[in-house]
Amino acid sequence: MSLPMIVSHHRWQQIRVLAMDVDGILTDGTIQVGENLGERKTFSVLDGLGMAMIREAGIPTAWVSGRHSSATIQRAGELVISHVLQDRKDKKEALQELARQEGWKPEEICYLGDDIIDIPALEWVGIGVSVPNALPEVKLHADWITDRPGGAGAVRDVCNRILANRRQK
Amino acid sequence: MSLPMIVSHHRWQQIRVLAMDVDGILTDGTIQVGENLGERKTFSVLDGLGMAMIREAGIPTAWVSGRHSSATIQRAGELVISHVLQDRKDKKEALQELARQEGWKPEEICYLGDDIIDIPALEWVGIGVSVPNALPEVKLHADWITDRPGGAGAVRDVCNRILANRRQK
Amino acid sequence: MSLPMIVSHHRWQQIRVLAMDVDGILTDGTIQVGENLGERKTFSVLDGLGMAMIREAGIPTAWVSGRHSSATIQRAGELVISHVLQDRKDKKEALQELARQEGWKPEEICYLGDDIIDIPALEWVGIGVSVPNALPEVKLHADWITDRPGGAGAVRDVCNRILANRRQK
Amino acid sequence: MSLPMIVSHHRWQQIRVLAMDVDGILTDGTIQVGENLGERKTFSVLDGLGMAMIREAGIPTAWVSGRHSSATIQRAGELVISHVLQDRKDKKEALQELARQEGWKPEEICYLGDDIIDIPALEWVGIGVSVPNALPEVKLHADWITDRPGGAGAVRDVCNRILANRRQK
Repeated sequence: MSLPMIVSHHRWQQIRVLAMDVDGILTDGTIQVGENLGERKTFSVLDGLGMAMIREAGIPTAWVSGRHSSATIQRAGELVISHVLQDRKDKKEALQELARQEGWKPEEICYLGDDIIDIPALEWVGIGVSVPNALPEVKLHADWITDRPGGAGAVRDVCNRILANRRQK
Repeated sequence: MSLPMIVSHHRWQQIRVLAMDVDGILTDGTIQVGENLGERKTFSVLDGLGMAMIREAGIPTAWVSGRHSSATIQRAGELVISHVLQDRKDKKEALQELARQEGWKPEEICYLGDDIIDIPALEWVGIGVSVPNALPEVKLHADWITDRPGGAGAVRDVCNRILANRRQK
Repeated sequence: MSLPMIVSHHRWQQIRVLAMDVDGILTDGTIQVGENLGERKTFSVLDGLGMAMIREAGIPTAWVSGRHSSATIQRAGELVISHVLQDRKDKKEALQELARQEGWKPEEICYLGDDIIDIPALEWVGIGVSVPNALPEVKLHADWITDRPGGAGAVRDVCNRILANRRQK
Repeated sequence: MSLPMIVSHHRWQQIRVLAMDVDGILTDGTIQVGENLGERKTFSVLDGLGMAMIREAGIPTAWVSGRHSSATIQRAGELVISHVLQDRKDKKEALQELARQEGWKPEEICYLGDDIIDIPALEWVGIGVSVPNALPEVKLHADWITDRPGGAGAVRDVCNRILANRRQK
């Protein structure tokens, strides 16, 4: 079940875009609700610094969520995320449209997802990444599983991996 | 204490309704409180997608809570839950009234509960399910225990199980 | 370090009052803060049902907090807690005043605490209880450690223990 | 990877100032966001009592955050933290300015950090402390790792250590 997963240095070096699902990746998959206040979500500061570092390295970040949430918009604003797509359960198609528009090739995209609607996108991109808290059937379709769970540094793990492979010639 | 629990394929295939307690099942059993704002609760997006998938498969969801909470109403609204009963500590009786009204037989109902007031309902239905975080005395009355805890995918585990048994002839 | 702790059936049967610290016992010891809204805390529904059950059995609950928090007042109101003392870091003295006023003997009181300011109270009462998440030096002064941590059923563990010892002659 | 870390009694006794990063140290590194309400963070009451105890022992606390957050200001106000610097990703320089102004020598400062921007400060001070939830590359630069994670008593661990070394001649 947990064979060591190895993604080649070459494949990491080709990555030019970091794309990801939101709930379960940038969060632990929970939402807080109640009267008189919109849905609230919990994000990781580790991830925030990671996405800032790869942006400085010229790698844009895209968020593709199956739901709509104003909490997502707020966090994306703070982190200056260039591409935020919501209400797209057809993740792969959403990602393909964006890639066409921006001129990204699939092998240049690294995508993180944790639920079954992420599977087609995970299979389409150059490097498909999942998280320890993902559904088991989703992990089977990933090239790599992060050490840290979603919402607690999973995205930072990927940012560090991309940057380490760039430094290393 | 942890004998493998086996619920037959036949029993899963009979399930036509998914009923459940709220606190401890759809949440981790905690509520957040404070001044100037009602009680807030934390739900799982994994569970939300699971209940949407079984609704598409023709299986309605019923929530039966012993407490009243506007957070529950809000989440139920988002997920278009067809039956929401609150302030019913007599879970079994509430479920029986609903079953009579809707024409459901006990063997067609799968019910999830984690506290002692859920025990009569767990014993009455076709498949009684509990969660890792339930009180030990409640788990003894369950036919099956989910892998994921309440509020972190327990309901999704049950949805997946129902759907897998439907696909499998 | 973890010798089995045994509190005699006789001592549990003498308990007529359940007293406790708030932060770390009824919660996991965290508070959520931010602008435009008071402090918020996270309580367990398992504990709420436990305190309702022992109230029905004639056992009142007293909360003694070293801090002041409107979140505590709100939760105490919902649970109809008869005695709520806040801003009392001198837990033992606060408890002694209350005991004198209400006519409780120390051996009739079970007290739960997790921090060093709880130690004198833990030693004064009939049964001093601590929690897995307590500071190690506090646990040394407790007669019993709950299974569940503070904020996730620790108080319910004690309620169940009191009720089980009452039923058992 | 986990050799026992020993910081000499002499070095602990020299500490006159407790300085720290905020996110990941005083919190678990997460922030809660959503519409109509600023960012909220979750702090530990154990840490609060620890910082009160060392203040009484004459040791001031300084917070140095790479981000700006009103939640941090609010918590700092409650705890009467003497020095709060925000929006300073250049932690070491910020700490050096403060030290110069206040007349603190590096060997008199204990600093806690969890992310790579904390590494220069961890190396500059007398005792650099990190937390179990820190990035692995940061832990390598720390003299000591706390038992409790950030947001759940890490700071209290350090306060207890400082006070224990002061009592012990």
